[in-house]
Amino acid sequence: MADDSDAAPGPSRLEQQIAFLLEADRLKGVLRRSRLINEDRLENSGEHSWHFALATLVLAEHCPEPVDLLKVLRMALIHDLVEIDAGDTFVYDEVGKDDQAAREQAAADRIFGLLPEDQARAFRADWDEFEAARTAEARLARAVDRLLPLLHNCHTRGAAWRKHGVNAGQVVAINRVIEHGAPDLWTYARRLIDEAVRDGNLEA
Amino acid sequence: MADDSDAAPGPSRLEQQIAFLLEADRLKGVLRRSRLINEDRLENSGEHSWHFALATLVLAEHCPEPVDLLKVLRMALIHDLVEIDAGDTFVYDEVGKDDQAAREQAAADRIFGLLPEDQARAFRADWDEFEAARTAEARLARAVDRLLPLLHNCHTRGAAWRKHGVNAGQVVAINRVIEHGAPDLWTYARRLIDEAVRDGNLEA
Repeated sequence: MADDSDAAPGPSRLEQQIAFLLEADRLKGVLRRSRLINEDRLENSGEHSWHFALATLVLAEHCPEPVDLLKVLRMALIHDLVEIDAGDTFVYDEVGKDDQAAREQAAADRIFGLLPEDQARAFRADWDEFEAARTAEARLARAVDRLLPLLHNCHTRGAAWRKHGVNAGQVVAINRVIEHGAPDLWTYARRLIDEAVRDGNLEA
Repeated sequence: MADDSDAAPGPSRLEQQIAFLLEADRLKGVLRRSRLINEDRLENSGEHSWHFALATLVLAEHCPEPVDLLKVLRMALIHDLVEIDAGDTFVYDEVGKDDQAAREQAAADRIFGLLPEDQARAFRADWDEFEAARTAEARLARAVDRLLPLLHNCHTRGAAWRKHGVNAGQVVAINRVIEHGAPDLWTYARRLIDEAVRDGNLEA
């Protein structure tokens, strides 16, 4: 189980795991565009990752395909770790997206590489699967990850949308992936978007 | 699957789930005693819950018994939700502990009660199991939950220990539960405690 031998002077398996967890602590300092519902501040990617994992537990039944819930949770817990190096790229930021993939791949190499090799490979495989969005687990995960900022916007009078000049057409285009993971949630999200326009919290 | 019928005018199953997730957002505003390693602020219970779940994924192999990892993750994700109503009780606060159980039971009733009935029951059962600490899953969860603030203290020169006048005897007594969930992690934790005393970050 342990990959440290008497001959190896390097860190033990547990020390590698702890080094990874200490580095992960930095995600609590990466700010997103979403505002919290009950506090006047931006959300960070650590607390978002918790909310995302919790929402996955609660909403998984809305995925029409059978899913391995443990895998979806693993994706939720690690999906944003690359932001420690690469920063949070706003989904409506077309310029930032240009080199986002390259920055995030390099970050994944470094951050997952802190773990013992077998765990680094497993975490990286989960992250790659989330990014590729081709399995039911990844589609559900991406649906929930998109639904949450929509909820935050709807409950903060469209704070992030208004601040960044996002309109309803963009919101529909970006969030349509919710339909691929959980059609029920997309029906609900469409209703929220329509209400946000009606209430003046989102530009038509 | 859905418990909403044509006759029922109440919120739909999905609306109940969303109401729970919106309420859960408040956990991001509950402050703990731990300081972040790389930011000069206190940790909140939402981001802690993420770090806890992530640490569970990484460290589960140190539990000598087979565990249902999905259950441990469920516990990690919901274990602090009661703090939305009951606040965070510092583990070294003997006065606050007096009525902690009663406050947290009432909070669990209210907060899990926002969910559809079957989910409310399931989440409450996980929380009760975590609190009772009688299963291998709960013991592992409690071990990881205790290890994290110890790591935070050791990497912030004992910030929370020094601020609250906690000594090594108290740290050993409170954290000994780590041994019940993962003896390897307790061996490691003991070394950290000894080093903290040696380095002057923890009173002997």
